[in-house]
Amino acid sequence: MRIGIVGLGLIGGSLAKTIKKNTNHVLMGMDINKGAVASAFSQEAIDGEINVDTLSGCDVVIVALHPRATIDFIISNKEKFKSGSIVIDVCGVKREIVDKVEAPLREQGVEFVGCHPMAGREFSGFEYSVDNLFERASFIMTPTDFTSMRAVREISTLAYDMGFARVVMSTPQEHDRIIAFTSQLAHIVSSAYVKSPNLMRQSGFSAGSFMDLTRVAKLNEDMWTELFLMNGEDLTFEIDQIIKHLTEYRNCIEQSDAKTLNTLLREGRELKESV
Amino acid sequence: MRIGIVGLGLIGGSLAKTIKKNTNHVLMGMDINKGAVASAFSQEAIDGEINVDTLSGCDVVIVALHPRATIDFIISNKEKFKSGSIVIDVCGVKREIVDKVEAPLREQGVEFVGCHPMAGREFSGFEYSVDNLFERASFIMTPTDFTSMRAVREISTLAYDMGFARVVMSTPQEHDRIIAFTSQLAHIVSSAYVKSPNLMRQSGFSAGSFMDLTRVAKLNEDMWTELFLMNGEDLTFEIDQIIKHLTEYRNCIEQSDAKTLNTLLREGRELKESV
Repeated sequence: MRIGIVGLGLIGGSLAKTIKKNTNHVLMGMDINKGAVASAFSQEAIDGEINVDTLSGCDVVIVALHPRATIDFIISNKEKFKSGSIVIDVCGVKREIVDKVEAPLREQGVEFVGCHPMAGREFSGFEYSVDNLFERASFIMTPTDFTSMRAVREISTLAYDMGFARVVMSTPQEHDRIIAFTSQLAHIVSSAYVKSPNLMRQSGFSAGSFMDLTRVAKLNEDMWTELFLMNGEDLTFEIDQIIKHLTEYRNCIEQSDAKTLNTLLREGRELKESV
Repeated sequence: MRIGIVGLGLIGGSLAKTIKKNTNHVLMGMDINKGAVASAFSQEAIDGEINVDTLSGCDVVIVALHPRATIDFIISNKEKFKSGSIVIDVCGVKREIVDKVEAPLREQGVEFVGCHPMAGREFSGFEYSVDNLFERASFIMTPTDFTSMRAVREISTLAYDMGFARVVMSTPQEHDRIIAFTSQLAHIVSSAYVKSPNLMRQSGFSAGSFMDLTRVAKLNEDMWTELFLMNGEDLTFEIDQIIKHLTEYRNCIEQSDAKTLNTLLREGRELKESV
């Protein structure tokens, strides 16, 4: 089939390279950054360029933009997609995206499926895109009551053909609740971690644990601000959870309560071992 | 020279394998676990076994036990070390260790240097020891006003000969303050992280950031309880710092304050990039 990718950044570019490497689909790309399009074409990551007026030639369109831009692009161009085609996104939140774009597209005879390829790098842009970013990754789909089995089958087949390790079915609500814990909280904690006044003295005193805890502090603040604010309730719940637990450890330490501290640490180890 | 290692666990075993691989020193080992001694000998990680009565044959003794056991062993056997020899430890805290053992050893004509090889694995025991654990690691030494230049030189030469990437000089106080941030806080945060009620639903919704943030939750709770309680003041300071910062992010998210949230995230990114 003919696939269009809107946005050739880190994720869009990596999807393009992966689709070209692992499938025989015809792949068209577009980006407001003409350098990214030229790079993608010269590296054979896309077969050609499209624009909003030739989107209608695509059977599947992957919108790989930041969350607000994803909504804006789809709503602004809702009449440009081919009737009967499938549009997916790749954003890290699903509720607000699906809420905003599914119905307007449906009115045009176009199906929307909210998707989230679970991989990333602490860099942005096509120049960092790679054809193996998704090799051990989950591809999450969040179909709704309106989603057809045809769309689910076509997109999950595409994900497996690309080489995703597994396709996970969820709902927009469940996705956002769990992703607040597994991904969004990790970025908040990492960003908060580096703010200690002792940060600048860490050289020579750091091993793997410091590197692990702080890796994702190197994030794209514009994108993550959007993602966090689109999932505020689930995310503040998770931040409150970790603050509550940190306070328990803290109080044990202040009171030199070895027995309870040992129990808290053992419970943490056992939980980690259980997953 | 003749080196003795007391305790052939993950760290002691890895030090033994590294010394045998990279130096020509004669290396003797002891452990209350006779299986660990037998394994070390059969794997040629040590040249022979010693006990408390033959410790006196060693020019350098590396005590590679948990913190309380390190203090207990050295104090109980302070008369067993050779006069003029050097004793070092490998614990993750330095103030309490140095405070407790330096003077009693000095009265016996034995020099103590608090040391901390900055590497580890989320496993315990000789069976997990490896000869390359310290390849890119720092070796921290915390000499005091009583430490001779001879001891500093001998131990730092040994560390470089073993293949540590660098030897870092600190004081027990500075070591404990910075390690509270770079290592202890990482273990507390990781242990608190896995306590969300959403933990059991993470399968299929996790990528690298979740794995990174939770890796060191798999810790040895007996050892870390000792380490945390021996550094309570510095560690509660760091926990309070991260709780304060997490609360700032949390409140921005609750109030949908995109501008301040973006600034907090940008500051975190810039701090991470600066180190």
